Amino acid sequence: MWEDNVRRVVPYVPGEQPRVKNLIKLNTNENPYPPSPLVYKAMREFDCYDLKKYPDPNVGELVKALSETYNVPEDQIFVGVGSDDVLATAFLTFFNSDKPILFPDITYSFYDVWGELYGIPYEQIPVKEDFSIDINDYLKVNGGIVIANPNAPTGLYEDLSNIEELLKKNTDSVVIIDEAYIDFGGRSALPLIEKYDNLLVVRTYSKSRSMAGIRIGYAFGSKKLIKYMLDVKFSVNSYTMNMPSIKAGVASLKDPDYFKETTEKIISTREWTKKELKKRGFSFPDSMTNFIFARHESLERDYIFNKLREENILVRAFNGERIKEYLRISIGTDEEMKRVMEVLDKIV
Amino acid sequence: MWEDNVRRVVPYVPGEQPRVKNLIKLNTNENPYPPSPLVYKAMREFDCYDLKKYPDPNVGELVKALSETYNVPEDQIFVGVGSDDVLATAFLTFFNSDKPILFPDITYSFYDVWGELYGIPYEQIPVKEDFSIDINDYLKVNGGIVIANPNAPTGLYEDLSNIEELLKKNTDSVVIIDEAYIDFGGRSALPLIEKYDNLLVVRTYSKSRSMAGIRIGYAFGSKKLIKYMLDVKFSVNSYTMNMPSIKAGVASLKDPDYFKETTEKIISTREWTKKELKKRGFSFPDSMTNFIFARHESLERDYIFNKLREENILVRAFNGERIKEYLRISIGTDEEMKRVMEVLDKIV
Repeated sequence: MWEDNVRRVVPYVPGEQPRVKNLIKLNTNENPYPPSPLVYKAMREFDCYDLKKYPDPNVGELVKALSETYNVPEDQIFVGVGSDDVLATAFLTFFNSDKPILFPDITYSFYDVWGELYGIPYEQIPVKEDFSIDINDYLKVNGGIVIANPNAPTGLYEDLSNIEELLKKNTDSVVIIDEAYIDFGGRSALPLIEKYDNLLVVRTYSKSRSMAGIRIGYAFGSKKLIKYMLDVKFSVNSYTMNMPSIKAGVASLKDPDYFKETTEKIISTREWTKKELKKRGFSFPDSMTNFIFARHESLERDYIFNKLREENILVRAFNGERIKEYLRISIGTDEEMKRVMEVLDKIV
Repeated sequence: MWEDNVRRVVPYVPGEQPRVKNLIKLNTNENPYPPSPLVYKAMREFDCYDLKKYPDPNVGELVKALSETYNVPEDQIFVGVGSDDVLATAFLTFFNSDKPILFPDITYSFYDVWGELYGIPYEQIPVKEDFSIDINDYLKVNGGIVIANPNAPTGLYEDLSNIEELLKKNTDSVVIIDEAYIDFGGRSALPLIEKYDNLLVVRTYSKSRSMAGIRIGYAFGSKKLIKYMLDVKFSVNSYTMNMPSIKAGVASLKDPDYFKETTEKIISTREWTKKELKKRGFSFPDSMTNFIFARHESLERDYIFNKLREENILVRAFNGERIKEYLRISIGTDEEMKRVMEVLDKIV
């Protein structure tokens, strides 16, 4: 029977993407602000005539723009269809041993899915009671290490000195630092790629660059690391990045002022939101991201979730023993967050 | 050493994508005609504001349009980032046994690359002297079968009755029919998905739909087959199709007249090209695709390749013992093919 040969997996379940009018959508950590006006311009000027040809398999234009923006040589940059594509490619490329890879028990819930899919043994290291990571827990034999910094869904940022401590002591496997949320306040591990050739730093356009809909992720690492990833990428699909995404991706990088302005607005709204949530009986790890992972002192999580939903506000709730009391609330515009507080005032 | 754990692969090498002015590019089987005017319109009307949100992970709009166009239920359709993404996902999903998968020795050279990447045992079945496939060669124990029909780079079309013969006798593994070139004259295996729940039919926007630059591939199969693929897809990357590609992909399907007109033009140019190549001492398997796989009776392959290159005409040459005398020439516009003949007249 052909079904005997099928790879059976339990897929990752993304947050809902309902297309409901007037929904305040705070469930998938999207940016409340649209992309830079330069992205609009690039898309307007895009010539569909070019679509008849294949795009540049090396995504040269975008790699060059990333190189200039982040001051990293072009041969130390990898680009993919969102950071999930980049991370999945890194898992497939680097985690090819019998030793377990290590990552926190509370973190981005795609890591164990990729582990299962590719048959990579993995061990989920419990985070501390306060959700913080103890780097000492990772100092054992392993086939690789993955740390989201800041972490999701907790929002906690691990000081860069701890990341470097880990890198100093772990040179025999690849260390992936998933920096999907780094632009909202943390210090990036990017400068460390010069010192540690086993460090991969992964980023995305989906959060700080307001472009979840265009699907761009990228990674920085040593020349060797990137070359191995490119070999695997070119063994799966030569042309992953379509022409509109390349153009839009480059355009976004050409507008650093807009980027700074919107990320700063989100940070400021986040800090306001923290104060307001506290006033209403919520507690949460101190977020350095564009979301807050909060629980209420007395009200049930699902009660709040449903009440918000009734008022057209969508947030995210995860299963999992240690986090089942928490709501993850993405940071929207000031107006949206004020509306959240109004609704919470009615509930709590 | 971290490098000990790296998956080392020899990647597929795509055809050159030089950005040279006035190049007659006949090396990667692209369409010489631009996409439908409706694609231009869809892209012009695309609202970049939406990019801040994730796209629909189920690609509902495009799946619906494909469903209507090809009269296949939505839950029997899979969409990916070009047919390479679709095929790679199918390999990973369905070829998960110790028995070798079977495909011709002369065929799309990505099949063995995916085999190597995912550790799938494979056996390359020699095609006959005339490059045709003998279905009887595939009637043995296997972990799966992959047939490109029409085949690349030979261009040969295998009669649908032979494909059905194979399906009748091979029910214990998944059979993939890669129909990248089916719109240029062959009869599709699509109707057979109703009878054979282990049949996957794979298609692409890159050839007949003039949209290699947008990266869309799709597949039809039984509900069960598609569900297994979706589970794997959602275990790699929830959001593979970006918003512009979804819009452009739908728009293309809404213009069947343009599609018919351009594919018919290519078929007619191909038939003219066959006659002209014969006059000039070339022989070739009878192509049902948008390319011709030809060798010259006396002149060396590389000599012709280089002479064409000097005149700004790029065609494709493959290594491999059995095909090293052949050039693969994509069908361009009438004007481009006339120019090819002019240059050949100088050479032969």
